[in-house]
Amino acid sequence: MEISSLLKRLHQGDARAVARAISLVEDQGQSGPDIMAGLDPKRLETSLVVGITGPPGAGKSTLTASIVKALRNEKTRVGIIAVDPSSPLTGGALLGDRIRMMEHTLDPDVVVRSMATRGRLGGLCAAAGAAVRILAASGCRLVLIETVGIGQSEMDIATLADITMMVLAPGFGDDIQAMKAGILEVVDLLVVNKADQPGAQKLLLDLGREATSSGRVLQTVAREDQGIIRLLDAIFALEQQLRQDNTLQIRRQQARQREALDWTLELLKPFLRQQINSSPTANNDPGEIARQLAGRIIAEHG
Amino acid sequence: MEISSLLKRLHQGDARAVARAISLVEDQGQSGPDIMAGLDPKRLETSLVVGITGPPGAGKSTLTASIVKALRNEKTRVGIIAVDPSSPLTGGALLGDRIRMMEHTLDPDVVVRSMATRGRLGGLCAAAGAAVRILAASGCRLVLIETVGIGQSEMDIATLADITMMVLAPGFGDDIQAMKAGILEVVDLLVVNKADQPGAQKLLLDLGREATSSGRVLQTVAREDQGIIRLLDAIFALEQQLRQDNTLQIRRQQARQREALDWTLELLKPFLRQQINSSPTANNDPGEIARQLAGRIIAEHG
Repeated sequence: MEISSLLKRLHQGDARAVARAISLVEDQGQSGPDIMAGLDPKRLETSLVVGITGPPGAGKSTLTASIVKALRNEKTRVGIIAVDPSSPLTGGALLGDRIRMMEHTLDPDVVVRSMATRGRLGGLCAAAGAAVRILAASGCRLVLIETVGIGQSEMDIATLADITMMVLAPGFGDDIQAMKAGILEVVDLLVVNKADQPGAQKLLLDLGREATSSGRVLQTVAREDQGIIRLLDAIFALEQQLRQDNTLQIRRQQARQREALDWTLELLKPFLRQQINSSPTANNDPGEIARQLAGRIIAEHG
Repeated sequence: MEISSLLKRLHQGDARAVARAISLVEDQGQSGPDIMAGLDPKRLETSLVVGITGPPGAGKSTLTASIVKALRNEKTRVGIIAVDPSSPLTGGALLGDRIRMMEHTLDPDVVVRSMATRGRLGGLCAAAGAAVRILAASGCRLVLIETVGIGQSEMDIATLADITMMVLAPGFGDDIQAMKAGILEVVDLLVVNKADQPGAQKLLLDLGREATSSGRVLQTVAREDQGIIRLLDAIFALEQQLRQDNTLQIRRQQARQREALDWTLELLKPFLRQQINSSPTANNDPGEIARQLAGRIIAEHG
């Protein structure tokens, strides 16, 4: 298919064209730059990207499904990027499986892209960023990035988003409990899911009155679609605020610089690996090999 | 302190010298290479590095404490590198707090180093690798690397180890359950902790007879120090095997190449960021900026 035809179908919302475009960009083929350059800037501008993160078992997938349902009731087209951090273990099938179980599989206005981190911790921000923009250009008013996990990599991916949201639920161990206090420093919204379960009130109390009265802590029971409309209202209110005070534009600029860095590192890796593997490895200090190699590159380039 | 004196005290097992040496190497100061070059190669050779990973709540910290207790009963000196992935939320305090609660705090032959991933997803492998070797040189027969999480970054850190171990426990959601089948493809040992709880038998059944009869699936009740001796036996038996068939040497070679790559990327980042931020950002394609920058570096260096 020619790129112009692919772009036309993509902008008409054709799911296969969307999938093909994302793959071409991911594979770093010749046509990648042409595709990215051909995306409708107005659609990119008006779309909103929401990052959803949180520990396994908090109910992110159920919440995502419930959000999608509410958006579809309003005829809103929505994209989902599901990042699967467990892929070293599952080969990337985990989230894909769960997403396929969702009730919206046959809805052409729910566009799902599953991404595995297998074999590339780096490169993922870049690939996810490109996919976000392709989904936005295809007419998705909202693009959700769902990541399982609480590690730094998941946070990095989440911060590609315009708005970040963490999902917690009662009943987690100290690992999760200990970090509650700092959550609102790094995410925009905190969703206490399974809010009908024992322990939810304690979780809210632990968060403190300042947090819970800030309007940034929401309660949901995703399994029963409770609290979803209020959550969407909070998301769109925050969007309006971020657009008004120019924060959205600054966040996007920073996200693109991060993506460019991520791509660059990814593109340099095979070259650097080759240089490293041909270095003498007599000593116990990989750092010394690195210092020499990086120093040479910076000197030559400067 | 002069480096020669620092190295002497380090090899005598002095905890403050160990901490100082790790900090100097982490900070990439002038003395880092001298410290690394001065480590006793025989101690590095005879030590064993065990990576412990698994989801929050599986009981990794309790298991680690129980392993340390058993090793100390045998007068074995042990090092622990605790990697805290939740540091964007807690500022790195989480694991530190838990480690401090351990009963071995005052034992000079239990050396703990806490590492936060804050602000550097990259660079962590390199820093952890250097810390591992410094702990080994200080006389630790075993160095444990404990990471919370199931993401790719945690796996990367775990694979710095000679032997990798994943800790699971009954009662996790589908997120964890779905990946069980593939676990033994990526880790050496699988520990089913809380093996006295309902659900443990189902977890073992789900793993399949082939896995559970392989000798690579162990059961523990870490809170009651049950199954720990058998686990240590399995670790040391595997060590012997890996040394005999030369696998250990190959793994260490690969780990060092990975560390060198990780250091190199880390050292290049500020330079690359500066290049990217001074690029024109008129288009929607960070990939294009990256391709041009990476292409230029590779061409100039080639």
